[in-house]
Amino acid sequence: MIFVLKPTVTQAEIDHICEKIESFGLTPHVSKGVERTIIGAIGDETILQSQPLEALPGVERVLPILKPFKLASREFKPDNTVIAVSDVRVGGQRLAVIAGPCAVENRELLLETAREVKQAGASLLRGGAFKPRTSPYAFQGLGEEGLRYLAEARELTGLPVVTELMDPREAELVMMYADVVQVGARNMQNFKLLKEVGTHDKPVVLKRGMSSTIKELLMSAEYIMSEGNYNVILCERGIRTFEDYTRNTLDLSAVPVIKQLSHLPVIVDPSHATGKWDLVAPMAMAAIAAGADGLMIEVHPKPEEALSDGAQSLLPRKFSRLMASLRLVAEAVGRTV
Amino acid sequence: MIFVLKPTVTQAEIDHICEKIESFGLTPHVSKGVERTIIGAIGDETILQSQPLEALPGVERVLPILKPFKLASREFKPDNTVIAVSDVRVGGQRLAVIAGPCAVENRELLLETAREVKQAGASLLRGGAFKPRTSPYAFQGLGEEGLRYLAEARELTGLPVVTELMDPREAELVMMYADVVQVGARNMQNFKLLKEVGTHDKPVVLKRGMSSTIKELLMSAEYIMSEGNYNVILCERGIRTFEDYTRNTLDLSAVPVIKQLSHLPVIVDPSHATGKWDLVAPMAMAAIAAGADGLMIEVHPKPEEALSDGAQSLLPRKFSRLMASLRLVAEAVGRTV
Amino acid sequence: MIFVLKPTVTQAEIDHICEKIESFGLTPHVSKGVERTIIGAIGDETILQSQPLEALPGVERVLPILKPFKLASREFKPDNTVIAVSDVRVGGQRLAVIAGPCAVENRELLLETAREVKQAGASLLRGGAFKPRTSPYAFQGLGEEGLRYLAEARELTGLPVVTELMDPREAELVMMYADVVQVGARNMQNFKLLKEVGTHDKPVVLKRGMSSTIKELLMSAEYIMSEGNYNVILCERGIRTFEDYTRNTLDLSAVPVIKQLSHLPVIVDPSHATGKWDLVAPMAMAAIAAGADGLMIEVHPKPEEALSDGAQSLLPRKFSRLMASLRLVAEAVGRTV
Amino acid sequence: MIFVLKPTVTQAEIDHICEKIESFGLTPHVSKGVERTIIGAIGDETILQSQPLEALPGVERVLPILKPFKLASREFKPDNTVIAVSDVRVGGQRLAVIAGPCAVENRELLLETAREVKQAGASLLRGGAFKPRTSPYAFQGLGEEGLRYLAEARELTGLPVVTELMDPREAELVMMYADVVQVGARNMQNFKLLKEVGTHDKPVVLKRGMSSTIKELLMSAEYIMSEGNYNVILCERGIRTFEDYTRNTLDLSAVPVIKQLSHLPVIVDPSHATGKWDLVAPMAMAAIAAGADGLMIEVHPKPEEALSDGAQSLLPRKFSRLMASLRLVAEAVGRTV
Repeated sequence: MIFVLKPTVTQAEIDHICEKIESFGLTPHVSKGVERTIIGAIGDETILQSQPLEALPGVERVLPILKPFKLASREFKPDNTVIAVSDVRVGGQRLAVIAGPCAVENRELLLETAREVKQAGASLLRGGAFKPRTSPYAFQGLGEEGLRYLAEARELTGLPVVTELMDPREAELVMMYADVVQVGARNMQNFKLLKEVGTHDKPVVLKRGMSSTIKELLMSAEYIMSEGNYNVILCERGIRTFEDYTRNTLDLSAVPVIKQLSHLPVIVDPSHATGKWDLVAPMAMAAIAAGADGLMIEVHPKPEEALSDGAQSLLPRKFSRLMASLRLVAEAVGRTV
Repeated sequence: MIFVLKPTVTQAEIDHICEKIESFGLTPHVSKGVERTIIGAIGDETILQSQPLEALPGVERVLPILKPFKLASREFKPDNTVIAVSDVRVGGQRLAVIAGPCAVENRELLLETAREVKQAGASLLRGGAFKPRTSPYAFQGLGEEGLRYLAEARELTGLPVVTELMDPREAELVMMYADVVQVGARNMQNFKLLKEVGTHDKPVVLKRGMSSTIKELLMSAEYIMSEGNYNVILCERGIRTFEDYTRNTLDLSAVPVIKQLSHLPVIVDPSHATGKWDLVAPMAMAAIAAGADGLMIEVHPKPEEALSDGAQSLLPRKFSRLMASLRLVAEAVGRTV
Repeated sequence: MIFVLKPTVTQAEIDHICEKIESFGLTPHVSKGVERTIIGAIGDETILQSQPLEALPGVERVLPILKPFKLASREFKPDNTVIAVSDVRVGGQRLAVIAGPCAVENRELLLETAREVKQAGASLLRGGAFKPRTSPYAFQGLGEEGLRYLAEARELTGLPVVTELMDPREAELVMMYADVVQVGARNMQNFKLLKEVGTHDKPVVLKRGMSSTIKELLMSAEYIMSEGNYNVILCERGIRTFEDYTRNTLDLSAVPVIKQLSHLPVIVDPSHATGKWDLVAPMAMAAIAAGADGLMIEVHPKPEEALSDGAQSLLPRKFSRLMASLRLVAEAVGRTV
Repeated sequence: MIFVLKPTVTQAEIDHICEKIESFGLTPHVSKGVERTIIGAIGDETILQSQPLEALPGVERVLPILKPFKLASREFKPDNTVIAVSDVRVGGQRLAVIAGPCAVENRELLLETAREVKQAGASLLRGGAFKPRTSPYAFQGLGEEGLRYLAEARELTGLPVVTELMDPREAELVMMYADVVQVGARNMQNFKLLKEVGTHDKPVVLKRGMSSTIKELLMSAEYIMSEGNYNVILCERGIRTFEDYTRNTLDLSAVPVIKQLSHLPVIVDPSHATGKWDLVAPMAMAAIAAGADGLMIEVHPKPEEALSDGAQSLLPRKFSRLMASLRLVAEAVGRTV
């Protein structure tokens, strides 16, 4: 941690800052430059990271040297983490494609979609039983009934299922049915929910919040991991910007950045990011070319009747064609689908 | 709702869209222009608002005519809502100033701060017992112990207390102690939490999410109100932008915009918005000049020892001086403190 | 154009709006709904597009139906535009890779870099003789001397050269040397400069402004085209967001969006977008997978001595390796390098 | 300047970095911490500021200690700069209110508006003769004819005039008529234009770019000042964010931030920031409460016929009423209008 001092700093203030640093067991090194004095704090910086050091008199800015996350960092674990979900591996050489409807709407539709995405080559089935919706008047999901249909679809197709958890009170229920629990973008900093999923060992898909930096995403992964659950799959799904042609702005550079900073697998959701089905295929291919470990794609047999996010859902035959294109791109970057 | 059709739309597609509109009980009006055909849907637009209409073949865009919120809208209730918290009124001619430490850290500090802000003229006391922190390794609040200290501070000073609720499982507990429950920015779209506070009649301070539009803030108020709790106080606390000198960008234009769109009271939190104590006073004064119904300000007797957000906390004597300045600005815009 | 009227609109206001619409030669169609009256204006909407219609009493909002650009739109010209630069074609099946140093620093370095990128397979050479720099104290480019070195590098390698124009007073000079003129991101809405390059027939690379929407980029292309120069190559180079790990956020979804809205070719600059050389390769591959027509990549033999943007420059051997990877991805999406 | 080194850095790399620092005449101080080695460079940091230091092998990040601007900084000149425009002072105790139409449309309208704003108490007259418009098909201004009308309005009312310069080729012409030259938001980083106005001594209103940080605004002021013109008035006019209810998001915290960082006067343009006339008054009052030195406000006698930005223009009688309210707020913060 480096303290940049104000040009008007007094010796008494410098002494006070040094005492403060020492009181946390670190060693201060004062360095007087031409225009500024700076103090380096040598020792375990993490002790200082949540201290209000900028409130100390005479301090202009405090510059952290280390990243604020540990367990999620590549320095902590240099090798890629590969997460097992039944017999699917997420984070390895083979890409994981999670496909299915945004929401579980009824039994028939789900089973039909599950069969179609299985046939096209998807490795996991997605479908929301509890749905976060901007409007209280919109379809909120089928709840446990939806979870039962997901379990039935898994039996039918063999695909493990991914479904969202919104409420810590429903954790036991959702974990009973799900193979992977999803924490949605709006809950990325719902710290109580993060802690709750951290106390189980069920794999978690953690979606990046719409206004969260990559480092904050890794801090939220750290929340889950610090409770003991290391099975975290990160998911880039678009951030909020001024551009309004797409629903969000897909930040694909997050993929190689996360690969540098962390050992955790990272997948991409081009459906929510773009909000438009005809942008899903090019962005899915781009995600794989950028190094993503997998995709999460919305597929619906009748998009115009979907109870949630129809405009961004692919028809099964379009998904099937996309899978064929993905195979070529995957091969070009040394992966398989 | 207006459907703008693609230039390549066919008559069969137009017929299909019209049938769809009729199936929801609305009447379609087709209007063929020079370059585009458009269809207006006459009737109760809210029925259509969560339908995937952009997935209909031939549709280029769908333009809503009405706002998606009802109970929160000024059209629904033209007069300003004034919310009673003990003998304090939020939303009336007199401004509500909520002050206190970010987190309740210990009994002495809280009682001291409470006495100081009371003396300076604050109308409510703030203090977090449950704290949302970006890092799992940072101080997470004292929990119920903190709530008890808040109750003691209320007894001592007569100030009603405002404190944050993060988890629906803790709703009963927090409501037992709090006069006003706060839903934080990170939980603005934690819909399960919104529904939970909606089922009580305790006043709620709902903070705007960092990446939420004003309309989304009003939709989250609608969530609470649609469960029966109309006592919602909105709070602008800064949005996330590219500007990194301040912690967030305080969007003061949200104040007059909310006043136009909604009857609910709106307050401003300049401490979290700016992240720097020396920007709090000018932005507090600006908020009042812009028409805010109150303020939420962090005050701490020893900012450099605060366990949370010390850099943005005012010393009690600086808060006291700010209150004096606020009285002058309030008077200039026809309000009192 | 659709006028959504206020709920409080009077008949006199409606009449006045209709007269206004008629005064521009369009026909108003009034449609009274349950909660709102709306007026559609039938006729040539472009006449209304720069009128202050929202200032009319009784009007709540005005919704345009058509896009504000014409010459740049795919509706105007359904086929892809392919732009000839010497014997290179930009926008066709073969990808155009523009490579070279950020700035022309000296003769030897430029000639060396030109030879290297030529050998690696680049199709055009880039290099700035006039440099827009945030600081007035930073290297501002060699000016005409730099242009002469570019011409020499072209003679040596046969590569056409792309260089930036910053000032309409230097248009003649720059056009004398350049094969393609670049308008930089900071000048995307320097309308005088756009008009100036519009009066020549030299191909133009138009970079997207850091805070410009895709539609505004196309409006700036329209500026150039409306003066007669149809040879516009659009370039996505990252937009400004809250994410600060990368220099900008590369918006790759702009590629398929532009392909839908416009017939103009679009290339991607991953060097400026990310600001970090080790993110250039994955984002370059992602750009091609997303459907870009080419790339603009910074290459420098000694990045640590570069006078501009060294941190984002590839070493020639890394660029050469990237070209090999690009060939595989290009093939996977049916293109060649 | 502080160099944070990679955990994998070698001694050879450290030596190389130290040599590099010495080669610029600074002294390196190596400090080996528990998890990272850092190097401080003692000496004139400005020499290093435009060097590609992050490209040096072994360097993880480079942290600047000093601000990149000098002449514009409060450290360079602790006292507020007060700029004389005829007998008006900008930056002193009395607020400067610049009012008038967005564009000069015709002689009569301009003279009428000038008389009205003079009577209401404005201190300067604004009006664009050259207009930057997003669309090439929109009204582009009257050019020199508009400048002549401005001069006539000045003679009539005694108000000095502020008008925009878009093109360095028109500098002489515009300076001949204008008392203050405006550099618009879209040209804030048109460095050639900045240099051009820097070579004159005419006062300049420099508007903040839509996606520019406060520091970049000050760097653009530095461009003008480094050419010799110290008469720079900064103008906050809204930045681009995801919020779409207002045209831009007015960042009023920029006012106290600029006051801390710089000695230059700062004014606020609530008309362009909000894009809606009914938000202008509250935001103008907030700007004054936040400490702004003045305002720039659009006034038009017939907003619905304005050729540019009618929706955000105040009627003269509304402007007159606003001036009365502003007097009260100004008094509350110790200023006069």
